[in-house]
Amino acid sequence: MKLLIVGGVAGGASAAARARRLSEDAEIVLFERGPDVSFANCGLPYYIGGEIAERKKLLVTTPEMLRSRFKLDVRTQSSVEAIDRTAKKVRVRDLASGREYEETYDKLILATGAAPIRPAIPGIDLSGVFTLRNLQDTDQIKERVDQSVKQAVLLGGGFISLELAENFVKRGISTTVVEKNHQILTPFDPEMTTPVVQELANKGVTLLLGQSAETIEQTSEGLVVNLNSGQRLPAQLVVFGVGVRPENKLAVDAGLGVGPRGGIRVNDQLQTSDPDIYAVGDAIEVKDFVSGDPTQVPLAGPANRQGRIAADNIFGRSVRYRGTQGTAIVGVFDRTAAMTGASEKVLRRANRPFRKVYVHPANHAGYYPGAEAMVLKLLFAPDTGKLLGAQAVGGAGVDKRIDVLAVAIQAGLTVYDLEEMELCYAPQYGSAKDPINMAGFVASGLLRGDHPQIDVEAVLATPAVERSFMLDVRTPQEFTSGHIPGAVNIPVDDLRSRLAEVPRNRKIAAYCQVGQRGYLATRILLQAGYSVVNVGGGYKTYKLWHPSA
Amino acid sequence: MKLLIVGGVAGGASAAARARRLSEDAEIVLFERGPDVSFANCGLPYYIGGEIAERKKLLVTTPEMLRSRFKLDVRTQSSVEAIDRTAKKVRVRDLASGREYEETYDKLILATGAAPIRPAIPGIDLSGVFTLRNLQDTDQIKERVDQSVKQAVLLGGGFISLELAENFVKRGISTTVVEKNHQILTPFDPEMTTPVVQELANKGVTLLLGQSAETIEQTSEGLVVNLNSGQRLPAQLVVFGVGVRPENKLAVDAGLGVGPRGGIRVNDQLQTSDPDIYAVGDAIEVKDFVSGDPTQVPLAGPANRQGRIAADNIFGRSVRYRGTQGTAIVGVFDRTAAMTGASEKVLRRANRPFRKVYVHPANHAGYYPGAEAMVLKLLFAPDTGKLLGAQAVGGAGVDKRIDVLAVAIQAGLTVYDLEEMELCYAPQYGSAKDPINMAGFVASGLLRGDHPQIDVEAVLATPAVERSFMLDVRTPQEFTSGHIPGAVNIPVDDLRSRLAEVPRNRKIAAYCQVGQRGYLATRILLQAGYSVVNVGGGYKTYKLWHPSA
Repeated sequence: MKLLIVGGVAGGASAAARARRLSEDAEIVLFERGPDVSFANCGLPYYIGGEIAERKKLLVTTPEMLRSRFKLDVRTQSSVEAIDRTAKKVRVRDLASGREYEETYDKLILATGAAPIRPAIPGIDLSGVFTLRNLQDTDQIKERVDQSVKQAVLLGGGFISLELAENFVKRGISTTVVEKNHQILTPFDPEMTTPVVQELANKGVTLLLGQSAETIEQTSEGLVVNLNSGQRLPAQLVVFGVGVRPENKLAVDAGLGVGPRGGIRVNDQLQTSDPDIYAVGDAIEVKDFVSGDPTQVPLAGPANRQGRIAADNIFGRSVRYRGTQGTAIVGVFDRTAAMTGASEKVLRRANRPFRKVYVHPANHAGYYPGAEAMVLKLLFAPDTGKLLGAQAVGGAGVDKRIDVLAVAIQAGLTVYDLEEMELCYAPQYGSAKDPINMAGFVASGLLRGDHPQIDVEAVLATPAVERSFMLDVRTPQEFTSGHIPGAVNIPVDDLRSRLAEVPRNRKIAAYCQVGQRGYLATRILLQAGYSVVNVGGGYKTYKLWHPSA
Repeated sequence: MKLLIVGGVAGGASAAARARRLSEDAEIVLFERGPDVSFANCGLPYYIGGEIAERKKLLVTTPEMLRSRFKLDVRTQSSVEAIDRTAKKVRVRDLASGREYEETYDKLILATGAAPIRPAIPGIDLSGVFTLRNLQDTDQIKERVDQSVKQAVLLGGGFISLELAENFVKRGISTTVVEKNHQILTPFDPEMTTPVVQELANKGVTLLLGQSAETIEQTSEGLVVNLNSGQRLPAQLVVFGVGVRPENKLAVDAGLGVGPRGGIRVNDQLQTSDPDIYAVGDAIEVKDFVSGDPTQVPLAGPANRQGRIAADNIFGRSVRYRGTQGTAIVGVFDRTAAMTGASEKVLRRANRPFRKVYVHPANHAGYYPGAEAMVLKLLFAPDTGKLLGAQAVGGAGVDKRIDVLAVAIQAGLTVYDLEEMELCYAPQYGSAKDPINMAGFVASGLLRGDHPQIDVEAVLATPAVERSFMLDVRTPQEFTSGHIPGAVNIPVDDLRSRLAEVPRNRKIAAYCQVGQRGYLATRILLQAGYSVVNVGGGYKTYKLWHPSA
């Protein structure tokens, strides 16, 4: 067996190591265009910021290690230029010498990754304008930062841009993020990004939403980014991160199938349209685990697993890739945002029925010091309660809850299963009723009809004259410090004795701070014969939609 | 509906609140023997230590709050003395006035909890000898500590004792823990407690295993605890925590069924042998979720859920309790120990077949600063790979992995499912191959036969003459700083070129530090025709069994 692997970072390196464990005899050649294999992609912003102090930490493994430990024929600075499927060989260019040569294969794995999209902006090629993809980009950006950068502009408000923003601020750089959409972190639903937007503002990052760069120019004082709004942003450093595109040229040129967004098409054994050629990682189209639809999800974890699975299949094991859930996480200063499964946006776009709930718990028992708040959004099927997706934003413990929900989605669990989950509880770690249980209670109550709820957007979308009677059941103090326009305040503890003040001839929408007192109020009013719903997630959820209200 | 609830802490308070949400009309009376309802049981050691500064933080709710918000008839300092099942009434004593009266019921919930076992030791009733169960105990212990305690003795090495040990040390008290078993934290397997034992030693706690108190005496200089070993431990404070026993007197006197260890018997709707009487919380016998056997698991999370479920059933919903997994966690200084499902001990005792693996990953990517080590043990069925139990000990991230595995056990997942889990990865939070994935790879490889393994205890239990050739595939530096007796060192990177040094006529047991290089060595040797196994979990697992080797 002679196996060639094109690309030596996450998926390619995993495939190579797995292949060797399965076969000591196979001839395994790993081609990598760059000088490094298997570097710590996700650590690059933190090396620029200084959090990761040593560059060598970013080298997860080295060509030498792969050679000695896994007996791999590692060829860095080697660009695979073409595939001849009929002759089963590739043409390789040694980038150092310029020499070209051919290499035959029995099986070929494409792990070519994805390349940053380069927007067609005049000035994008100026010195001082970068993308951040590999160690060489990192070195150049860090060198600039180490010299002297007062102002930086980040084009794009995705995961890496926000990680860079944090690290730039830590290096004392005045940082502006420009995002052409009206939200950052577009895989998330927009309201869930509100706490991150606030965190950026608190930490001094300027965020310009709904704007984009039209040109970048070099002036005597440095670069200037000209926005479509007319605003001019002077900068000594510009980094754009506006998405990636599968590196599919090799596949396309060889006539392999690719999807509409460019991802190399593979079956669930990760075989391309040519049975001797497999593809893995950011370069491929995958099946969305929740919807079953084809999609592209450039993430390191799935790339690693795909590498393993491709090798398994090549060496005679029949292993299937179950699809990608899109579990993702980003830290932005002291906030963490994480998600798994489908977003509300995606479900709406697919016209797929869903219900949702929001809860606003603390990561651990409130009586133990240091509890940090989070908001957790759950999306689920209206009929069965099957989990479709989850998003959480907050402080400590966000990663844990999204991991738990990622497993629940993998296992096909429902919101009713969340009620019963038995999770770690001691006051430093969780609560006797964990945020996961709380979300399960709220969602299950909704589906059982115990707990009729309305989304705050639905309330606000109703014209004022038709709108339900908005009943704020919080304390007068809470009400005074901010409430939904038009609401009337009757604290839940007084509700039973002040029922006469609640109109019988109108629908009632009750709300509190997070939904819990609103739930009790809803139960009281339901049993008193009212037509009542609880505003899901309460005033805190309203504030996600209307942060400056 | 007139519902009486006996006991107002976790299960009782949850049942009462749930009952009110289900019925505004029901008459609900909550009897609590003590002065407080629903206090933060699990926070008591941290209030003594000063971590929780304000006593009022421990009052999760108050009788007044339950009255105003939930319209509950809360009667504190009220002891329910007897149940007359025929007449459906209870006899209550008001502990303040001494007055006795009767109260009828339609349905009754027993949430009487569990009482600390009082060992029959002379001197157990001396002033200065305590248990820690409620706020009154806490106040007395804290008062002593605030005055001046130089030395404290904790009898029992369970969860609460170790939490107290930490808090005593933080208050400057010289602390000794005496445990009659040969391990602390008995729900865990013994080798998994090694890192906690080391942490106690590092933090200056004296731990005496396999010893017990025979008498406690009052001397002119304070208390002295006399151990069976003859050792005398002077102390100004003694706290015993040697387990709890269900508070079942009310149930037993009323002729309700109880299990062999005293837990009140309930069906899966939490009904006792009298269909009008339900029981929840630490007082009951529950079904072990993994084995299906009856057991007793005094934990706050399950108690809360049971309270909810009992109320649901009483108000006409048919809800079943699925059993208790025994997910538990304890923090001991900078170490966290957590578990879920069955332990190896329990599986052995039940003669249930199982396999196990150990992994020693870091909580997040090693290239990002602050990664903390953990050991994770997985127990699973040898045929199907179904997860049976998990234990982890280490620093940050232990709680997350056990929560993930708790959900996996709830969902009936297998070790193969762990391979595929898509968990949060950014370098501050996890790894592209999360500890959970790693454990899945190792366990699945074992079951698939790719990765034959042997438990380190099995190696050591073999007489030296019959023992496999022990092959240490770590670096010479690692080997020199400690290795399994009799091992021969050939680093994995040299193994292919030094095969001649590996005897053909013997079985080979390869090992490295954590199992990963040992796995590669095993693959190399297997394919070279050797009879070889990898020592599961490597030298680090050996050190769990032989910490001072």
